[in-house]
Amino acid sequence: MRILGVDPGSVQTGFGVIHEEQASLSYLASGVIRTSPASSIPSRLKRIYGELKIVMECYRPDVVSIENIFVARNVRSALKLGHARGVAILAAVNNGLEVVEYTPAEVKKTLAGSGRAEKSQVQHMVRALLALSELPEPYDASDALALAICHSHSREMKRMMKALAR
Amino acid sequence: MRILGVDPGSVQTGFGVIHEEQASLSYLASGVIRTSPASSIPSRLKRIYGELKIVMECYRPDVVSIENIFVARNVRSALKLGHARGVAILAAVNNGLEVVEYTPAEVKKTLAGSGRAEKSQVQHMVRALLALSELPEPYDASDALALAICHSHSREMKRMMKALAR
Repeated sequence: MRILGVDPGSVQTGFGVIHEEQASLSYLASGVIRTSPASSIPSRLKRIYGELKIVMECYRPDVVSIENIFVARNVRSALKLGHARGVAILAAVNNGLEVVEYTPAEVKKTLAGSGRAEKSQVQHMVRALLALSELPEPYDASDALALAICHSHSREMKRMMKALAR
Repeated sequence: MRILGVDPGSVQTGFGVIHEEQASLSYLASGVIRTSPASSIPSRLKRIYGELKIVMECYRPDVVSIENIFVARNVRSALKLGHARGVAILAAVNNGLEVVEYTPAEVKKTLAGSGRAEKSQVQHMVRALLALSELPEPYDASDALALAICHSHSREMKRMMKALAR
């Protein structure tokens, strides 16, 4: 199964694709979709949607794991973030993909053992879990990979729970 | 010229299409895209995008006038509203349409003379300006028509200013 993680933002949207086979994970791709804060909101949203569509068509993930956010600096930044997030979710659903959501705390807890872990700790865990020779950069890309890993882990946990229940 | 007004919301998204010819306005269509709060966010966003796409293909507007918001009850509702708004903007830009934005205060001031006018006052002005036999219902639809009228008025004002400057 292939999992695409997406960390949406109005200026930078991180993405990361991993392959999961029998609980073993491998890295496929990651990167950042950058939009200029000088560009209009419509053109920025078009770019985020278009680039994510290309990533989905290229790597054909089975599911999209997207950051679920309930906090923001203020209402204005929440609206901006909501724009990017809405467009990222739409790209997934318009490509017929399932969408799953994890909060930053869930991702941190899964990867680094604590919901309050630093971004750098998560980044180091992503490198270790995917056996990468270098740290995945920037944070938006490593956070997106972490979202994909978090979903894989959550599935694995559910499988184990089911097996135990039997 | 045809103007589509859109008042986005995660539960109800209002739309209204008007035709403008030599500063004379006429009503073409209006309505509300309803999504169930019980549905998942991905399916709700897909529906808003899909229905707006149909409206755009059906009425072929030249420009989309969308509500610009800077305030919300809280961060959580701002995120939800941002989702719907981002998807509405994307529908316009993916259909090659220009997007213009007006705040609720600008719309109220243009139509009812005060930025603090009640929704019912705006609704009555929409009815009068479009010579409708009945009040356009519900508020989401009349607000969307008001957004379209506001853009027409703003264009007319700019034309007059240009003419005066000559």
